[in-house]
Amino acid sequence: MSYEAMEAELASRLKDSRFRHCLGVAETAVFLAHRFGADEERARVAGLLHDCAREYRNEDMLAEAQRRGIAIGEVERAMPLLLHAYIGARRVREIYHVDDAMVEQAIWRHTVGGTGMTDLDKIIWFADMVEPGRNYPGVEELRRLAKTASLDDMVLEGLSQSIRFVVAKGHLIHPDTVLARNELLLKKTGRNEP
Amino acid sequence: MSYEAMEAELASRLKDSRFRHCLGVAETAVFLAHRFGADEERARVAGLLHDCAREYRNEDMLAEAQRRGIAIGEVERAMPLLLHAYIGARRVREIYHVDDAMVEQAIWRHTVGGTGMTDLDKIIWFADMVEPGRNYPGVEELRRLAKTASLDDMVLEGLSQSIRFVVAKGHLIHPDTVLARNELLLKKTGRNEP
Repeated sequence: MSYEAMEAELASRLKDSRFRHCLGVAETAVFLAHRFGADEERARVAGLLHDCAREYRNEDMLAEAQRRGIAIGEVERAMPLLLHAYIGARRVREIYHVDDAMVEQAIWRHTVGGTGMTDLDKIIWFADMVEPGRNYPGVEELRRLAKTASLDDMVLEGLSQSIRFVVAKGHLIHPDTVLARNELLLKKTGRNEP
Repeated sequence: MSYEAMEAELASRLKDSRFRHCLGVAETAVFLAHRFGADEERARVAGLLHDCAREYRNEDMLAEAQRRGIAIGEVERAMPLLLHAYIGARRVREIYHVDDAMVEQAIWRHTVGGTGMTDLDKIIWFADMVEPGRNYPGVEELRRLAKTASLDDMVLEGLSQSIRFVVAKGHLIHPDTVLARNELLLKKTGRNEP
């Protein structure tokens, strides 16, 4: 399927504001892939399609994940919206005929992150936080890092900001987000004294 | 061993400021145990002895934990100071002749928390955060909760504040702290929409 055909298919499935968000993530992902020497075409496709399962209602998200045999943790059970990442990863092949394990994984991890993230995983995760349509306190600082920091430092600050945001909202913290942040911190510092 | 003998033994092992901190935690733990209908004597003993392994230097903490066959996770390996909780839990029987699994567990969990915390676990964990010698931004709000909130709401806010603090400091977050907070949130809300 051509990129234009993917865009058209996605536009037919998402509401307009969500589709524009996807275009923003694709554009930002290409910028980051260029800056960090990652595959720009993969970044564009993964960015465009990262939210391709976002149109399910919460009630249907759990059923759809169960139907697909996706393991549902206690955080996902309480916040079914998170499942759109895993369902989306499965759909890129089915609907968009993208046969690329790296793209699938980047979409799988784009919401809560995880350990052992590839450069592409990090780029999509971060692009989702800072694409031009995003507007929240602190986004400008993250956009600055997107132009100046190393990939790991940029993602580390994004993960910290994401955890702060989740705590301030009184939401559950996904353990994978904490493990991702710990891994990058340990890689950076080796030890980390309290 | 009498409580007075425990105090004397502890005072001989810790520096004075640490010993006074332990007296503060014991006093606060008794207040909280009284308020929440928990065992005040257990709370006093667990509060007094919670830091009874705090005198090890970081370099020796890892060796001492290894000698005792305590499992060392990646967070503890990077922040050996955390091990004082587990080593302390083992020492209350050896040095202070306290034969009480609930006291041991409360000391084991007093730093990072965990899932399935008992009332005593929660009381010691929280008393350690707000004893009169503590002084940090936000402590007054937590002290207010100690007098007004339910046990779970009080600990939930303490856990959130602890995670915020750790992120602000750029330290690793212990997964057990996140799991403890998630558990209390899920108990409170059942679901938790992002």
